[in-house]
Amino acid sequence: MGSVRAEDGYDLWLRYGPVDSSLAEQYRTRLGEMVAPDQTATQRAAREELMRGLGGLLGSAPRLQAEGAGQRMLILGTPDSSRWVAPFRHDLDVLGDEGYLLRQAHVEGRDVLLVAARQDIGVLYGVFHLLRLLQTGTSLEGLDLRESPAMRLRVLNHWDNLDGYVERGYAGGSLWDWHTLPDWRDPRYTDYARANASLGINGTVLNNVNANALSLSPDYLRKAAALADVFRPYGIRVYLSARFSAPIEIGGLATADPLDPAVQRWWQKKADEIYAVIPDFGGFLVKANSEGQPGPQDYGRSHADGANLLADALAPHGGVVMWRAFVYAHDVPEDRAKQAYNEFVVLDGAFRRNVLLQVKNGPIDFQPREPFHPLFGAMPKTPLMMEFQITKEYLGFATHLVYQGPLYEEVLRADTHARGPGSTVARVVDGSLDGHRLTGIAGVANIGDDRTWSGSHFDQANWYVFGRLAWNPRQSSRAIAADWVAMTFARDPGVVQPVVDMMMASREAAVDYMTPLGLHHVMARGHHYGPGPWVDGGPRADWTSVYYHRADRDGIGFDRTTRGSNAVSQYAPAVARDVGDVKRVPESLLLWFHHVPWDHRMASGRPLWDELVHRYTRGVRQIEAMQATWEGLRDKVDAPRHAHVAAFLRIQRNEAQWWRDASVAYFQSLNGRALPAGEAAPPHSLSYYRSLQFPFAPGDGR
Amino acid sequence: MGSVRAEDGYDLWLRYGPVDSSLAEQYRTRLGEMVAPDQTATQRAAREELMRGLGGLLGSAPRLQAEGAGQRMLILGTPDSSRWVAPFRHDLDVLGDEGYLLRQAHVEGRDVLLVAARQDIGVLYGVFHLLRLLQTGTSLEGLDLRESPAMRLRVLNHWDNLDGYVERGYAGGSLWDWHTLPDWRDPRYTDYARANASLGINGTVLNNVNANALSLSPDYLRKAAALADVFRPYGIRVYLSARFSAPIEIGGLATADPLDPAVQRWWQKKADEIYAVIPDFGGFLVKANSEGQPGPQDYGRSHADGANLLADALAPHGGVVMWRAFVYAHDVPEDRAKQAYNEFVVLDGAFRRNVLLQVKNGPIDFQPREPFHPLFGAMPKTPLMMEFQITKEYLGFATHLVYQGPLYEEVLRADTHARGPGSTVARVVDGSLDGHRLTGIAGVANIGDDRTWSGSHFDQANWYVFGRLAWNPRQSSRAIAADWVAMTFARDPGVVQPVVDMMMASREAAVDYMTPLGLHHVMARGHHYGPGPWVDGGPRADWTSVYYHRADRDGIGFDRTTRGSNAVSQYAPAVARDVGDVKRVPESLLLWFHHVPWDHRMASGRPLWDELVHRYTRGVRQIEAMQATWEGLRDKVDAPRHAHVAAFLRIQRNEAQWWRDASVAYFQSLNGRALPAGEAAPPHSLSYYRSLQFPFAPGDGR
Repeated sequence: MGSVRAEDGYDLWLRYGPVDSSLAEQYRTRLGEMVAPDQTATQRAAREELMRGLGGLLGSAPRLQAEGAGQRMLILGTPDSSRWVAPFRHDLDVLGDEGYLLRQAHVEGRDVLLVAARQDIGVLYGVFHLLRLLQTGTSLEGLDLRESPAMRLRVLNHWDNLDGYVERGYAGGSLWDWHTLPDWRDPRYTDYARANASLGINGTVLNNVNANALSLSPDYLRKAAALADVFRPYGIRVYLSARFSAPIEIGGLATADPLDPAVQRWWQKKADEIYAVIPDFGGFLVKANSEGQPGPQDYGRSHADGANLLADALAPHGGVVMWRAFVYAHDVPEDRAKQAYNEFVVLDGAFRRNVLLQVKNGPIDFQPREPFHPLFGAMPKTPLMMEFQITKEYLGFATHLVYQGPLYEEVLRADTHARGPGSTVARVVDGSLDGHRLTGIAGVANIGDDRTWSGSHFDQANWYVFGRLAWNPRQSSRAIAADWVAMTFARDPGVVQPVVDMMMASREAAVDYMTPLGLHHVMARGHHYGPGPWVDGGPRADWTSVYYHRADRDGIGFDRTTRGSNAVSQYAPAVARDVGDVKRVPESLLLWFHHVPWDHRMASGRPLWDELVHRYTRGVRQIEAMQATWEGLRDKVDAPRHAHVAAFLRIQRNEAQWWRDASVAYFQSLNGRALPAGEAAPPHSLSYYRSLQFPFAPGDGR
Repeated sequence: MGSVRAEDGYDLWLRYGPVDSSLAEQYRTRLGEMVAPDQTATQRAAREELMRGLGGLLGSAPRLQAEGAGQRMLILGTPDSSRWVAPFRHDLDVLGDEGYLLRQAHVEGRDVLLVAARQDIGVLYGVFHLLRLLQTGTSLEGLDLRESPAMRLRVLNHWDNLDGYVERGYAGGSLWDWHTLPDWRDPRYTDYARANASLGINGTVLNNVNANALSLSPDYLRKAAALADVFRPYGIRVYLSARFSAPIEIGGLATADPLDPAVQRWWQKKADEIYAVIPDFGGFLVKANSEGQPGPQDYGRSHADGANLLADALAPHGGVVMWRAFVYAHDVPEDRAKQAYNEFVVLDGAFRRNVLLQVKNGPIDFQPREPFHPLFGAMPKTPLMMEFQITKEYLGFATHLVYQGPLYEEVLRADTHARGPGSTVARVVDGSLDGHRLTGIAGVANIGDDRTWSGSHFDQANWYVFGRLAWNPRQSSRAIAADWVAMTFARDPGVVQPVVDMMMASREAAVDYMTPLGLHHVMARGHHYGPGPWVDGGPRADWTSVYYHRADRDGIGFDRTTRGSNAVSQYAPAVARDVGDVKRVPESLLLWFHHVPWDHRMASGRPLWDELVHRYTRGVRQIEAMQATWEGLRDKVDAPRHAHVAAFLRIQRNEAQWWRDASVAYFQSLNGRALPAGEAAPPHSLSYYRSLQFPFAPGDGR
């Protein structure tokens, strides 16, 4: 108000603050003159982003030249839009429709820096890459980069309701103001598109998978079309979550049976109607027969019948169906971790060519750590789309600093052994293992109308790393973190190094203070805020904690070996052999796969109980170390963001302690064991921790 | 993102953009050196605001002098904090604890500009006044202003729920992030306090009158205390809405009977507990026995018994009770407009000295136009607090440009004739009519976490005018609008004049297209979005439209004369005589007080039906005229705000047309009359308008 704006996080990683003067001088020499087409909206977006970015980074935007007269020029374009790019047509063809080339070259005796692609969108992606090189202080000498995305669909899933509420959202309300759409197109929609395009994200599902049929009604389609118009220049297609029973709810039919011809006609007409207003509509995301949602099984049909119904309606228009594999039934007396596999593997080969099966990274539900989902590698005839959760439903909401890069990386690099060693999850998802061309990856967005977009400064990094890994899942999450810190806070290695270290340690810290050693699903009921290892009863056993930890006087853990639920059998033999053997299973997954006695000897030499308490405490200590690191950066980070992060770290530290104390108190009440030497007793009784109620914790399902 | 920030409305009327250079030169001469204390938080706030404001307006902040050496100086202070102010102690005493003096003077041979007050808060108010003079380009020569507020409590009421939802809120979610409080104090809380202090608002009720008892629990009191800490330097006290049944819900008692000693002790202890963490806590706002809320009548006690229970608990700490008079019962076969009067007049004199009765401006519910509430003037022994609604529940939500200054002014200037002519509502409320010293005015806030604060740029003016009138209800709403436009958009008379004209006409336009000629309560059910004159049935008759308009084949209007409900008898005879006589009642209130035939002859010479249609259409035309005015300002208003306002005006124009068409179609279906010549038929059938559903319209009650 009335002065220079405080750093409030709105600019994300696109701050474009000035680079050091020596670097700026170098860059200016190369980038002082620009030739860039402006005939299409995407061309204009690319050009404007460069003008804005270089204006900020170098203090002045490049001179725009109509034809190119200078000795040194920055050239943007495609073979069709730029005569300077035309000679590189062959190089560009191999990079595909979204790929791009960044290259220093000599053309007609001139010294040019090319940002070139087959299509305009590739040029825009190249512009963001070039800006990233500048933002991270990278030299442009001898530049020769060729990039194309590993996956075709790189999509955010917004769990946003039509009333503006975001399920599992910790960043305010929905970005989409449905009430004022389509008439008012908030400029923030454009900034959203810019941020996503800077990462190569090319799709967005606007509404919650727990969908309301009204999102398919004419009024809401017009509103979605306005967003699609805003996003189109940035290469982002709009998708919608489709409620399977929509033919009944808004179509007036008596059934939603996928084999009913009237239902089929209804979806065909609906698809025609959608494409009439959104010509490049991406398709449907569907949660069916899952947690109470309607689906084909309501009519005795299979998931394939359901998915194919929608796929047939979309196929003439080029749309796809992303059918979620997150299904489990509480009336099935089977380990929840096994149910999706049991349901879907038999359907491999039964889906239309424009269907992807969207599979969460692990078999339960976005826990701090899970083994990879056994479906990966088990359905070679079906494109499996990865679903990560960017919003931190199980990772402390927005107030905990938990960088998920290492989690995503761990999953993507996990080896399914489906076709022998090296059959990584990444290769399943990017289609290279089984030869799929329709491929994709989805992230459940952590974006809301909070000024920071993500509810905290550091949660922006989770959006960022998701996007970067979606483009190329083989990148290192550490390198991506380093880029993000340099772009978001400062290029100074004295900032980048400690902040990256802090980020890289943060996920393991959360595992330690919440769910060490393979524990899972032990949070409070419903809103999932805080610890709840005592949660039992209620409508379904698989929504309790005791179902998962199975702790008693003698031991703890879920026996998923051949002697137990035999979930290990859903993995390839090489994997099953390791995780099914209590001697070979990584300790990080011990209690996921095994029920063991409290005095089970750990690698550290400690008994399990002591190790468990040790890990809880270690998690708390790690957050204290992060606080110390952050405090040491007080002079190197702007005051507003420093204060914000420091306040959230205090909350995280206190909540980590709460998790540790409540968990220790609970498990101790079962096993009656003494605390290891040096470990402090919880300051409150177990009944105190059990009594805490948080009726207004954010993001709860409705 | 990465460039100069767009004008997004966040700065409100505190933008402090540079003044013309000639003016700046003048101001700099007078304001180049400053002597200002910084021993208290309020002193620092005043000083920092001046540094910030002058820095923006004049390009450089004044030089701070410890003692004052220059020939010309700006002096901030109180007689106790500044030796330069001490000689004016006597002048300041008459201005009270919140008043201030702005004055050019010669002191000890120096030429000084004094911003002086008895208390620090007065100095802060004076600083904002001085900045306003500069923002509006006013000369400082011969300055001698003395200000003190007409009312003691100038309070915002936030209808914010603990889950972040705002009832009747059209500006996003709640500003208060209860989840991260008290640990994280968002800098926006400080900007909220600055904006309010700039108007002299000195209290805020944090939570909805439809209250949750948990807001009085220890956890939430700690959160409220953190907000109180942020607001304190700006003179703003925190209040809470109290749920009358809290002793049961969080106190474990079996009753909330106000005469029960255990209940009395519970409230006393609760008050002690509150003041332990918020030493300057303001008090309670209570909605009791109203629209389903619990209250003293549940135990056969009176509203006075209920209010006095809480007043006794607060009195030792200096707190007050603001007891709402908004009560009506659907099982009472009495005109709803009469019920509050019937309930409360008999209790005049029965309330404790620290109780105010908070009365809505009109007897129904914040309609586009209502006569003043008959309680004003009818309870001389009780301080009556005015309740205006700033948020536009019945005025088109945030998308309609409706400046409420004229509405507030109309009410405040209305003459109750309670003690003869000149007994205006303003004089009832400011206590001068009946000699009350405890006085107050409340506005239901239109503030949320939207970047614009109020959901639109022009709705900021409603917050602004409320605050200005709360300080001095005798000001003209036109002059206040002119200040606001100059501070918010531009000082250029070529902007101020047309925008003020547009604002001043906007409320009458809304009356025309929604509820002309005294119609009221004819909006859609529940969310109140759009027209609903056909609304009938449902849980209670007084929540329908037909209850209020009583239209049929022959005529329209609510007969509140002696032949009807006789609501006119609740006004002083001089008022009743006018409004009760169909020949003397202002046409603007005709259908509020009278049921008349469709061919009733109007002043225009037209029959009522023709006049009604004419007014609806006139309202639409007025919005079109506003669109043309705004379009003409394209080059004089920054592009982002121009586009935003233009988009909202398009929405308003279309919705005004919708109101007109649906209303005309409905009333025509009753009277079967032809449309007047030149009037277009509604483009859709009545059944179409009736079929429209808006399940996600914002702000609906929960």
